[in-house]
Amino acid sequence: MKGFDMGIFITMEGPDGAGKSTQIDLLRGYLLERGYDIIVCREPGGTVISEAIREVILNKDYKNMGHMTELLLYAAARAQLVEEVIQPALEEGKVVICDRFIESSAVYQGIARGMGIDLVYEINQFAVGSTMPDITILLDIDAETGIGRKKKQAELDRMESEKLEFHKKVVEGYRLLAERDKNRMVKIDGRNSIEEIHRQIKGAVNNTLLRDGRGCDEEF
Amino acid sequence: MKGFDMGIFITMEGPDGAGKSTQIDLLRGYLLERGYDIIVCREPGGTVISEAIREVILNKDYKNMGHMTELLLYAAARAQLVEEVIQPALEEGKVVICDRFIESSAVYQGIARGMGIDLVYEINQFAVGSTMPDITILLDIDAETGIGRKKKQAELDRMESEKLEFHKKVVEGYRLLAERDKNRMVKIDGRNSIEEIHRQIKGAVNNTLLRDGRGCDEEF
Repeated sequence: MKGFDMGIFITMEGPDGAGKSTQIDLLRGYLLERGYDIIVCREPGGTVISEAIREVILNKDYKNMGHMTELLLYAAARAQLVEEVIQPALEEGKVVICDRFIESSAVYQGIARGMGIDLVYEINQFAVGSTMPDITILLDIDAETGIGRKKKQAELDRMESEKLEFHKKVVEGYRLLAERDKNRMVKIDGRNSIEEIHRQIKGAVNNTLLRDGRGCDEEF
Repeated sequence: MKGFDMGIFITMEGPDGAGKSTQIDLLRGYLLERGYDIIVCREPGGTVISEAIREVILNKDYKNMGHMTELLLYAAARAQLVEEVIQPALEEGKVVICDRFIESSAVYQGIARGMGIDLVYEINQFAVGSTMPDITILLDIDAETGIGRKKKQAELDRMESEKLEFHKKVVEGYRLLAERDKNRMVKIDGRNSIEEIHRQIKGAVNNTLLRDGRGCDEEF
């Protein structure tokens, strides 16, 4: 359980190419201006050990990686990130923004790989313990648009190289999770302009800060 | 569940320096002579992906690896080895000899790291499914002797570099497991001569082969 003086844990989720990095940059800038102490991290990665695990997970040569291996590797990288970065930062009262977290496993491995959401949360419970996000922003965008954007940016990694059918399952999976947990997850239409999405994210994050007694009266 | 025509799965366990590699070589030679089709593998490793995970696990620079990260990484490497090597070999009726398996996690992470045996088996259940050893040979040796031998052989990896106190817990942990599961685990005194240990291992393995209708009448 989070204590009274704990920080706020924000996760950003969505299919590849949904615009997570852009929105994280904007949100960090906004919260920094307002005086918050911010930590930004990404998954898989965010620590030396987790980045080494990331190299294994995303290596394009490892086409025959088993689904359970993949799931356990993501959980291992997450466990290290939680222990080394996220939990200590929250204990110091910081705001942590993480690019992907447990919902990525629920969607990519649980739904798109077909391993089941419950199995994924069960295994990841060992990795995260009680360190769950206070708010999860889902940038909702269709698979064709998302992966089309990614292809323009850089060479695709092992996950991004999956077939369109896989990415469609990812999109549907995120929508399902957002339906299931409306308390924590906020779905935002990724087809909106960057500015409009940023405005909606600020509003959602401010509601969470308000619940924690640290929001502002600003209108969004 | 193993079908009628399945192979035999033998695992070799024990503290570092107990003599596992030597005994595996001898056992392989003996079984090859008797006409068995043998696969030998080691943990963590045994596949390209599992060896890449091994590099992360045993890297001496990663001193701040969390215990849960370590446990999940071993499970991930194991999942890949089971799926890619062990299970297919057993389905082809082969004899698989593996240098370390699930009991190493139970002892090193569960007991020596203090994470608990039950937790370790619970997580590893996801990694191995029903692919459990038919027989597990434990080479029992005290911690001082084992790690003393290792120091003479090569530079110690991250696990081998642990304090003597850790290795003592490993030794005690193995003894505890052997007490708990006398059906599957066979404890052999590692202070005996190489030949005597080999003779005892041949006897134990032959009993398992006999149960499977494939043993011989040889006296050991």
